[in-house]
Amino acid sequence: MSTHRYERLADHLRERIRAGYYSAGERLPSVRALAEAHGVSLSTAQHAYHQLEDARLIRSRPRSGYFVCALRERPAFPPPSKMAQRPVAVSQWEQVREGTCVLPDTHMHNLGRGMPDIDTPTIKPLLRALSRAGRRHDLIGLNYDTLHGRPELREQIARLSVAHGCRLHPDEIVITTGCHEAISVAMRAVCEPGDIIAVDSPSFYGALQSINAYGMKALEIPTCARDGISLEALELALEQWPVRAIQITPTCNNPLGYTFSEKRKRALLALARRFDVAIIEDDVYGDLSWAFPRPPTIRSLDDEGRVLLCSSFSKTLAPGLRIGWIAPGRYRERALHMKYVGTGSTATHAQLAIAEFIREGYFDPHMRRMRQQYRHNLHAALDVIDAHFPTSVRVSQPEGGYMLWIECGAALDSLALNERLMAEDIRIAPGVMFSATGKYRHCLRLNYAVMNDAIRYALKRVGELIGEMEKAEAREAMTAG
Amino acid sequence: MSTHRYERLADHLRERIRAGYYSAGERLPSVRALAEAHGVSLSTAQHAYHQLEDARLIRSRPRSGYFVCALRERPAFPPPSKMAQRPVAVSQWEQVREGTCVLPDTHMHNLGRGMPDIDTPTIKPLLRALSRAGRRHDLIGLNYDTLHGRPELREQIARLSVAHGCRLHPDEIVITTGCHEAISVAMRAVCEPGDIIAVDSPSFYGALQSINAYGMKALEIPTCARDGISLEALELALEQWPVRAIQITPTCNNPLGYTFSEKRKRALLALARRFDVAIIEDDVYGDLSWAFPRPPTIRSLDDEGRVLLCSSFSKTLAPGLRIGWIAPGRYRERALHMKYVGTGSTATHAQLAIAEFIREGYFDPHMRRMRQQYRHNLHAALDVIDAHFPTSVRVSQPEGGYMLWIECGAALDSLALNERLMAEDIRIAPGVMFSATGKYRHCLRLNYAVMNDAIRYALKRVGELIGEMEKAEAREAMTAG
Repeated sequence: MSTHRYERLADHLRERIRAGYYSAGERLPSVRALAEAHGVSLSTAQHAYHQLEDARLIRSRPRSGYFVCALRERPAFPPPSKMAQRPVAVSQWEQVREGTCVLPDTHMHNLGRGMPDIDTPTIKPLLRALSRAGRRHDLIGLNYDTLHGRPELREQIARLSVAHGCRLHPDEIVITTGCHEAISVAMRAVCEPGDIIAVDSPSFYGALQSINAYGMKALEIPTCARDGISLEALELALEQWPVRAIQITPTCNNPLGYTFSEKRKRALLALARRFDVAIIEDDVYGDLSWAFPRPPTIRSLDDEGRVLLCSSFSKTLAPGLRIGWIAPGRYRERALHMKYVGTGSTATHAQLAIAEFIREGYFDPHMRRMRQQYRHNLHAALDVIDAHFPTSVRVSQPEGGYMLWIECGAALDSLALNERLMAEDIRIAPGVMFSATGKYRHCLRLNYAVMNDAIRYALKRVGELIGEMEKAEAREAMTAG
Repeated sequence: MSTHRYERLADHLRERIRAGYYSAGERLPSVRALAEAHGVSLSTAQHAYHQLEDARLIRSRPRSGYFVCALRERPAFPPPSKMAQRPVAVSQWEQVREGTCVLPDTHMHNLGRGMPDIDTPTIKPLLRALSRAGRRHDLIGLNYDTLHGRPELREQIARLSVAHGCRLHPDEIVITTGCHEAISVAMRAVCEPGDIIAVDSPSFYGALQSINAYGMKALEIPTCARDGISLEALELALEQWPVRAIQITPTCNNPLGYTFSEKRKRALLALARRFDVAIIEDDVYGDLSWAFPRPPTIRSLDDEGRVLLCSSFSKTLAPGLRIGWIAPGRYRERALHMKYVGTGSTATHAQLAIAEFIREGYFDPHMRRMRQQYRHNLHAALDVIDAHFPTSVRVSQPEGGYMLWIECGAALDSLALNERLMAEDIRIAPGVMFSATGKYRHCLRLNYAVMNDAIRYALKRVGELIGEMEKAEAREAMTAG
């Protein structure tokens, strides 16, 4: 958890190293000098260096101090263009469909899916709660739930919402079958077939496919890998097109990993107000932000009920439970109707178990552990990437979650890469899935939630194959030239 | 066709009762005595008594044997008209919404909802399976499922499908979040907004609300309480309107209780073929038919993949698990897409538990017990109705399931009745919910899945209030006249 001083200090140093303030091979201040400069204890300073050492950003030389490692230089992502394209019908179902058909209990190393680590001791109490929910004397777990969802779970979600600046009342919340249903409900509550939804780009493929299936159109807004959706491009798009809603993942974005600053969140909300459009805010990775306190949701800044906040326990606890929720604001009545016609009500059993897990105080320690693990894993993944991916490859800098976005040379075909990886039981998420029209073919998304020797090896193979393919491509280009 | 021995024996007994040979309240010969007297097997004698019980000529009292009923004469349902109305936009969301917001763990006697009896010993192994699924070492219950659903459950559903004449392959089945999602998926797989769906009338309100929410139009086909949808009216409608699909519950219909004969199922399929429309077959009560073997599904008669078979475990096991399925025939690819954008995948945990419950042989004995209980409860409910409902009221004759459809005098307002019942913590399902345009205001649906003193009392109060309201109505009419 980022409450610890040493972690904040390590973050600060990490940023300076990444930004080139300290360069490769350079000696860092002594532990004592660091402690004095930042007004922290010696042990805090020492701890911070240990963390950076763990992440192999620095290394110690006996009796000499700490030195910056020779990280390979990588190019930055280019700034996004200022112009949105035209609203388009979404395609790419084939690629998404294929990715959703891999059984989890196979040998496959699936680096492509948005799967958290579920094999962690802090999740054990949830298994016990599930087991108990099944044996409940009143058989509530077998009974129809109400359309809104179990009151005990809505109460806990309302309590947790304080962390992102909301003071939701349990009655403002509707439980859904995962965040997938929440987004699907939100779109149908706000839009009709034919309506235009503005989306960040690259964007979560599930949301894009909903736009596709409900006959709506996606307007892809250029998005910066560091700062998020371009507000200038969005403003131009809103002036030009009759947009009904903005669908966005502003905190620990999927797939880019950035977090929209509070200032930019306010500016986005102001734009939405000016053009009278709804905001569908996907906060599914929000609790996995490394910042403390975690960044506010756009919903927390909204006093008009314009934001439909969608989230779930799929990224924080376990996706197989399919428990999500929506706080649909002023669209509540339509959202309830859309929830009803989609699934009637949500499975009762898992709701009871999750409510108990949170009520008994297991959620916060679990989240602390997972944030720490994912943060640690990111550095482990970056080490593998540094060692085995071509230096020309661009890599995102996530501020939370467990996803990396990789941009290869323009000629690389990540669908072909995935094909070749298949033979080695490895899968990635090809970039085309994250665009309405199959852009980002040269990009891919990687999951680093679990990091072990097998995953490290899989990651290494991804990098090696990218290298091979890029070399072959270069040879061909030479021959053709 | 009275070819079976038990049917001939039942005919014989029926004639004797009609002729006054056995009088009301009199005890009939024991099954053994009957078998000996007529030189038939015990099971033939038992079968004959069951048939008379279904026809409400006799009733069984536990440990006492069979008695002749003192049945009041009730008017029959009028035959349906031959003409369908125009395709219409569906309304009535308010009433449906209200019915879905009652928490199950309250004091309410909810006679309105389609809730099975879940408090039965034969369901205990399911609770144990749920408990075990939560503790599974491989954590499969927490993991994302594939889009199609768990293979072990699809396998069991394929096995069970033999009972209704299908030989489904597991790969033809897609698991859904209840039958609700199956129907919603089916409609979106076949139709676009603006398309016309022909429905039986009265019809399941969940399906009607899906038509509403997806911007489609319902064409209500006159339906006979005994024989089902009028094929003549349907044919005329298909000639007149560009219908895309027929949505129907042909076996143990909800709310009317009839089962479409195999002959009529074939005729319906032939019509669908002639006009090239899809059939969305809701078989959710099919396994609760009292006929043995259970009636075939339309899907089992279809060799073109024209029928999208929708069902679930909500009426046979427990609705809170939200596990249903669809066998979408030739519409499989679109159905998978619609499933994906609705909920992503189905909750894993309950799928594992149900698969285990069936595989270990608990499903069939459970179903035998429940069919027997519901059949028995029907007679108990009819006893209360005979004693406390006005004689003018028409009552459906279910051939399975646990729902009764009641038609009162044209002036009765079942919404007002429900309001008055609310004060006594009793609820019914008002007839308006079962029509696209609020027809059947003078009708109501009652659930007899559980029968105990409290439910008997609630049922009695429904009848008494109908009587009071009809009398008040008659007085007013007299005064006005």
